[in-house]
Amino acid sequence: MNRTIRLALLALLAGIGVAQAEPLTIESQGSFFIGGKDVKSETLSTLPAYAPSGTITVGQMYVRYQIPVAPKGPPVTLIHGCCLTGKTWETTPDGRMGWDEFFLRRGTPIYVIDQAARGRSAANASAINTTKMGKATPAELPTVFAASHEGAWAIFRFGSEYPQVHPGMLFPLEAQGEFWKQMVPDWLNSLPTPNPTVPALSQLAVKLNGAVLMSHSQSGIYPFQTAALNTSGIAAIISIEPGACPAATGDLKPYLGMPIMVLWGDYVEQAPRWAPRLKACREFAEAANKAGGRVTHYVLPEHGIKGNSHMLMQDDNSLELADMLLDWIRKNVPARP
Amino acid sequence: MNRTIRLALLALLAGIGVAQAEPLTIESQGSFFIGGKDVKSETLSTLPAYAPSGTITVGQMYVRYQIPVAPKGPPVTLIHGCCLTGKTWETTPDGRMGWDEFFLRRGTPIYVIDQAARGRSAANASAINTTKMGKATPAELPTVFAASHEGAWAIFRFGSEYPQVHPGMLFPLEAQGEFWKQMVPDWLNSLPTPNPTVPALSQLAVKLNGAVLMSHSQSGIYPFQTAALNTSGIAAIISIEPGACPAATGDLKPYLGMPIMVLWGDYVEQAPRWAPRLKACREFAEAANKAGGRVTHYVLPEHGIKGNSHMLMQDDNSLELADMLLDWIRKNVPARP
Repeated sequence: MNRTIRLALLALLAGIGVAQAEPLTIESQGSFFIGGKDVKSETLSTLPAYAPSGTITVGQMYVRYQIPVAPKGPPVTLIHGCCLTGKTWETTPDGRMGWDEFFLRRGTPIYVIDQAARGRSAANASAINTTKMGKATPAELPTVFAASHEGAWAIFRFGSEYPQVHPGMLFPLEAQGEFWKQMVPDWLNSLPTPNPTVPALSQLAVKLNGAVLMSHSQSGIYPFQTAALNTSGIAAIISIEPGACPAATGDLKPYLGMPIMVLWGDYVEQAPRWAPRLKACREFAEAANKAGGRVTHYVLPEHGIKGNSHMLMQDDNSLELADMLLDWIRKNVPARP
Repeated sequence: MNRTIRLALLALLAGIGVAQAEPLTIESQGSFFIGGKDVKSETLSTLPAYAPSGTITVGQMYVRYQIPVAPKGPPVTLIHGCCLTGKTWETTPDGRMGWDEFFLRRGTPIYVIDQAARGRSAANASAINTTKMGKATPAELPTVFAASHEGAWAIFRFGSEYPQVHPGMLFPLEAQGEFWKQMVPDWLNSLPTPNPTVPALSQLAVKLNGAVLMSHSQSGIYPFQTAALNTSGIAAIISIEPGACPAATGDLKPYLGMPIMVLWGDYVEQAPRWAPRLKACREFAEAANKAGGRVTHYVLPEHGIKGNSHMLMQDDNSLELADMLLDWIRKNVPARP
């Protein structure tokens, strides 16, 4: 189908019931933190105006929420991936409605988080100053990386290598510069195990008394790790293009009692970084289902939906995909008593 | 007056016309970035999975906006201070409505930003890896500091020193732990001059065609620096407890054509860090007014409002203060044609 016609049809479909021009009425909104612990440090600062010694709080997870007037399903927690923040789920690079608002307009309470040590969730910068002050070696500096545009191009599967573009690509590449602005340095490898985001997600799920944990990429495994910690409060897992699934040969018990969706975009088989991950997730899904689980392993092009990048929540058909996930939630997650 | 009764009265006053329990209807919401530039680096990563060489985008400013259905005044841009993010203006540590939502409910379009290199606005972490990889000395590491609880206590004027509390303190100290979670490392001293936040604020003001730039503490000077760069688009400046005002003896011309409010809380004279700043701002206000400007220099206790900390947008009387500022805007900022 001609791309312009297809996009017009998608926009029309997505718009049914969610006219973007209509005002939005919500019950409440706000933000809070989950988790966090106090740590003492002697290397907080090298500036005279701020003392080097003292206590800071780190490991907390920032959460911004919005609640619709008449919720129609369970709350959804939106968990971003590598080198990104909660911005992932907001307005797309080309200015279309993000999943945060779309899910809300469809009646879903939404909780958008910034992973521990990312965005509005504080990283512990002491280790930089420990070396700057000569109390540790350069090798002991924290591991903080930034993904380059050129490297991220293939990781996010806009093309197989920068700047080649996969044919039929649905990511709004005309606004690529706006996407690059979403990327932030990633402290992941400097964090304790488990990543503080995982227990924080568990606390949030328990607090919400039944949440869908929707993760992406690097955070793809987090809802599974959360379930392994404590299944309480987890109504379902939706893992979008996870960096990893639980091992098919491991303990599958934590994952058998809840509906799980693992969702993939296009061009995965051509991507050396992603093809083995998809294969491992398929094996996990098969093993879990064989053991009595309810895992939907959904590869979009196998269902005729082609052209999705790794950032499918920002692709041209993002709202159609959101509706597909909402439909899956409706059919698979039991209504709360 | 008894603190409980006083707080109940304040809550009642603040609630008039803004029943917190009422649903909120907005015209639109979303987020975008302003500014940012591409830079090349050879030290983006020390991990095999992410290449060290490539391009990243830094210096951009994250902006989250909400527009009421029937705007009643100019848009307000909320600019946080040192060691904090846009979270400053959201739900208070003890769970009350933040200024972001309150201004919105009063009919004000709001734009909450994360300063460049803070929160959802990317810092450039390359310099950490330059030293980690042995290509620069430890002394060349970026200056990144964290304010300790103990140090911040006096800076935010909860008391003159940790953990002493100023008598009559209106900051919700019972939720102090939640406030500490808002603090993040500050890259300010590693940024180019002018701070990229300043030109980004100018671009935002021009885009909004008449915005009130409301800053706090470290960012207190930014609206003035923005005006010195370009007065276009700046409808007014509200600078809350600024770290600095423009010099009274400097070029005052950029500040004479717009209404300006400089607002101070309590206990300032007792704070060695703040007393000279207040004095300098008072001198600026006097000099600007003498030259034909319209600067309101407002010290709350001089008007009978006592007990406000440096974080007055989170104090118990925060919504009363917000209404006071809205009233000042109504009286001083001409309606748009």
